[in-house]
Amino acid sequence: MKRKLITVMPEMTEDDKEAIRKAAETYGIHAEFYPTAEEAMPHVEDAEILFGFSPELVGKASSLKWYCTSSAGVDRFTDRSMYASKDVILTSSSGAYGTTIAEHVVMVILEVLRRQSDYAELVSRHIWKRGLPVRSIFQSRITLLGTGDIGTSCAERLNGFKPACMIGVNRSGKNPNNCFDRTVPVDRLEEMLPETDILILSLPKTERTYHLLNAERLSRMPDGALVVNVGRGTVIDQNALEQELRKGRLYAALDVFEEEPLKPEASIWDCPNLLITPHCSGDLSLPSTVEKTVRMFLENLKLYAEGKPLKRIIDFDKGY
Amino acid sequence: MKRKLITVMPEMTEDDKEAIRKAAETYGIHAEFYPTAEEAMPHVEDAEILFGFSPELVGKASSLKWYCTSSAGVDRFTDRSMYASKDVILTSSSGAYGTTIAEHVVMVILEVLRRQSDYAELVSRHIWKRGLPVRSIFQSRITLLGTGDIGTSCAERLNGFKPACMIGVNRSGKNPNNCFDRTVPVDRLEEMLPETDILILSLPKTERTYHLLNAERLSRMPDGALVVNVGRGTVIDQNALEQELRKGRLYAALDVFEEEPLKPEASIWDCPNLLITPHCSGDLSLPSTVEKTVRMFLENLKLYAEGKPLKRIIDFDKGY
Repeated sequence: MKRKLITVMPEMTEDDKEAIRKAAETYGIHAEFYPTAEEAMPHVEDAEILFGFSPELVGKASSLKWYCTSSAGVDRFTDRSMYASKDVILTSSSGAYGTTIAEHVVMVILEVLRRQSDYAELVSRHIWKRGLPVRSIFQSRITLLGTGDIGTSCAERLNGFKPACMIGVNRSGKNPNNCFDRTVPVDRLEEMLPETDILILSLPKTERTYHLLNAERLSRMPDGALVVNVGRGTVIDQNALEQELRKGRLYAALDVFEEEPLKPEASIWDCPNLLITPHCSGDLSLPSTVEKTVRMFLENLKLYAEGKPLKRIIDFDKGY
Repeated sequence: MKRKLITVMPEMTEDDKEAIRKAAETYGIHAEFYPTAEEAMPHVEDAEILFGFSPELVGKASSLKWYCTSSAGVDRFTDRSMYASKDVILTSSSGAYGTTIAEHVVMVILEVLRRQSDYAELVSRHIWKRGLPVRSIFQSRITLLGTGDIGTSCAERLNGFKPACMIGVNRSGKNPNNCFDRTVPVDRLEEMLPETDILILSLPKTERTYHLLNAERLSRMPDGALVVNVGRGTVIDQNALEQELRKGRLYAALDVFEEEPLKPEASIWDCPNLLITPHCSGDLSLPSTVEKTVRMFLENLKLYAEGKPLKRIIDFDKGY
């Protein structure tokens, strides 16, 4: 029986599929493409490789050896008990999303600082009113909590705006691509917060990141500071942040939440000083992101076929 | 009688005023500060120097020798007949606005490409919907018509987003700060338009720029292209652009219009594919912009007192 690769990624172009089909064929692997997990389900049992965002499928794929998520975050996939097959290698598409998420981050920062929702409301009523007090990225103190692909992509773009400083906070204290003025280890986060005008979070959901930004740490941020979260919602104590926003003390732009999707009756929808987006910062509706996930998958497919170690392997116990 | 300097700039801080007062005193000039042109009016007749945005005052200032506008654009001030005094030197504050206008430009480009007004509308109705088709600055072809302070400030920031190319269009064809991949003279604009995904205009109002972007030139732009105008509204044939937007063929983000303020009944308020802002991109509500105009004025005040040639002098006939 032929070795089988299943991909579930409706955003792929025909060119993407053809590239995967051809490469797989070279390695003696048959590639099948399904637009949804539901349609893939009857075909997944003897699949050796799975590529896509399909938590439903791994419980059925009893021959699975390698699962490549099309997402950068893997928190939905690190529970071994959900896999029908033992010893699956899990890889992520971390590295494909920095470009689009960084564009989102720069946009929402500017929208909040320049009071763009207030202007939009006035414009919707045909009111020509100038001079709302605005702020700028120029001369702001920026702290990035998380300095991986997303954090560095943000920093590379924000550097052009000449902020007062750009500090990276991560586990190691290392400075990737030298795009931060300096980096500090996460145990020094608390001393950075009082000096932070704009805080950008791009952390994964793990046990160690749960409520890392809690009420006490939020209280250390200066009045008027802006919190941007494009990582995982669980990193922030959302109730504590909502209180600060309702007091009018802080601002936030949140793309991720503790519970998603937000329920229609959630109080946070109408919270002041808050710009909400529906976890769309890294959507695969942007063709260049799809293209990059496919390119990264093909790179790993070659390594897999040659029996070499894969890139972007996830440690199930650490969760990243 | 003491030589007199009048400033009309309510956005100045006390520190700004003190700096001007002290410097002027050194040169034997008495500085007076008024929050409005109306309040300055009774004191303007014997003023030698005027600093602010006050077209009302120059007709009364019969002793005026130097007028420094607090704006970058000077089209309201290039008609010699409005001046009560002959041989006035006119200088602008061109160079003070690049930072804030570039932040505006990057913001509105991203808002249009990432369909942020559609997301805002969904969010206002508590609807969690992802996956709207978006686009990116990454790999876009950008053309900047106008490569002065504003154009170069935009290019410096946009470079971090890795566009496919960044072309400057100006009178000379020269490449300021080398921040463009290349620059071409304005008589080659037409051949650039079919290759332009994002067109940024930062041109002044002069006879030569009137309706530079007319119906014929707009028709050369590819489907889906985005036009951003932060210069003067007269540079675009606004009716022709509105037609392209209503057809759904082009997108635009306009901060300036042929007639300002927009009347409440103007049809363009509700035009699709258009993000309107009320000429606020360069507002003096941003403190760092005020600070820079003051710093630039002080630089010229020293030159003036020393009898040296001023910077940023406007040629009345050319209009820039």
